[in-house]
Amino acid sequence: MPLTLYELAGADPDLRFSPYCWRIRMALVHKGLEFETVPWLFTEKHRLEPSGQGRVPVLVDGDTWIHDSWTIARYLEETYPDSPNLFGCDIGRGITHFFKFWSETVLYPAVARLIVSDIHDCLDEKDKGYFRQSREQRYGKRLEEVTADRDARLPAFHDLLTPLRKTLHEQSFLCGESPGFGDYIVFSAFQWARCCSTFELLSPEDEVAEWRERISGLFGGMAGKATRVATSN
Amino acid sequence: MPLTLYELAGADPDLRFSPYCWRIRMALVHKGLEFETVPWLFTEKHRLEPSGQGRVPVLVDGDTWIHDSWTIARYLEETYPDSPNLFGCDIGRGITHFFKFWSETVLYPAVARLIVSDIHDCLDEKDKGYFRQSREQRYGKRLEEVTADRDARLPAFHDLLTPLRKTLHEQSFLCGESPGFGDYIVFSAFQWARCCSTFELLSPEDEVAEWRERISGLFGGMAGKATRVATSN
Repeated sequence: MPLTLYELAGADPDLRFSPYCWRIRMALVHKGLEFETVPWLFTEKHRLEPSGQGRVPVLVDGDTWIHDSWTIARYLEETYPDSPNLFGCDIGRGITHFFKFWSETVLYPAVARLIVSDIHDCLDEKDKGYFRQSREQRYGKRLEEVTADRDARLPAFHDLLTPLRKTLHEQSFLCGESPGFGDYIVFSAFQWARCCSTFELLSPEDEVAEWRERISGLFGGMAGKATRVATSN
Repeated sequence: MPLTLYELAGADPDLRFSPYCWRIRMALVHKGLEFETVPWLFTEKHRLEPSGQGRVPVLVDGDTWIHDSWTIARYLEETYPDSPNLFGCDIGRGITHFFKFWSETVLYPAVARLIVSDIHDCLDEKDKGYFRQSREQRYGKRLEEVTADRDARLPAFHDLLTPLRKTLHEQSFLCGESPGFGDYIVFSAFQWARCCSTFELLSPEDEVAEWRERISGLFGGMAGKATRVATSN
């Protein structure tokens, strides 16, 4: 029986943009596992009840429901040890844990402030109210005001990427000469932006952009061919 | 023949504080290798001539002179593969490379801005002129002005440590349940401050401080017992 991945979807059910879901989708293809995806909306928490909580990604493997992307990645690595590694070894997993927290506290919030009004615009009507209300409470202003000066903030955003850029100047992937879960954690932030916004975060000559294209082209170009708001709207 | 490590020293030749040297000292004891250290001053570039450049750390292994802390760590891992691992695997080394660049572009500059005038004060008289001139050019102000408002900047410094703190909330070391080279890269920034300054960077209840004490106590308390300016002056 193939695995099932519940993913956040937009008004177009083929539009999948959650960075937490993307990292698991990339992990599944990295490990060569068969899976099907199920579109899910923010307002459909009841559909995740067997997982004991109300957020995606949720992975269903037979009778086992697993939530939280870090827990899912560890589950995949432990349950399917003979398929290509996501972490490589204990030190690899340990340092990737730091990398996850750096991504989630520094990179993801910076990307969100550049695209959050676009995320809202591609949501299903049923989700728009919840999203606007919860995010405007977080930012203390309207979503359109959060992104209004985004062009001016791009240089500071590019500065935040300095350690990524320096790493990619020395090696092809963040995990070394081959990609690992760390690559997918960061890639998913850019894929989030690419899927739900037409605002370009990177200059084409940036080594981070070159790496993003390398990841987009992996696994038959799975991520690169994903539905985007620019083509779906 | 034991290995020889050239380390930056202060006016007291036993005062060793360079974070780039500390990470190699920690790597050598981690791998259980015998080594002797040689004190070196900024103004003694001629003594490093066989390495083809003028900065420490420099490791001498027989006839081989190796410089640059990342290159030395890789050399140790490849030359002494049977001793405890610094990187664990290719993914471990790959992500630790990012971690090094994050430390060197975010953490180390932030620590330097909190202690740079104290570094100057513990240098040998022969080094003080070079250090003051080169650093004041970098900051565009006197060293004493750089650190003048350091108390007020501590909260922002603590915020920078968020991804470290979140990682250490989940696991004992940055590399997992055992320390690796990534731990030593970050620890060395705190050891730098502890050796040459009495300014305390961390609150004792901070999980980062608890981890710092765990590392200080490793290998018979080698780092914890190191000469500090508070006791040597």
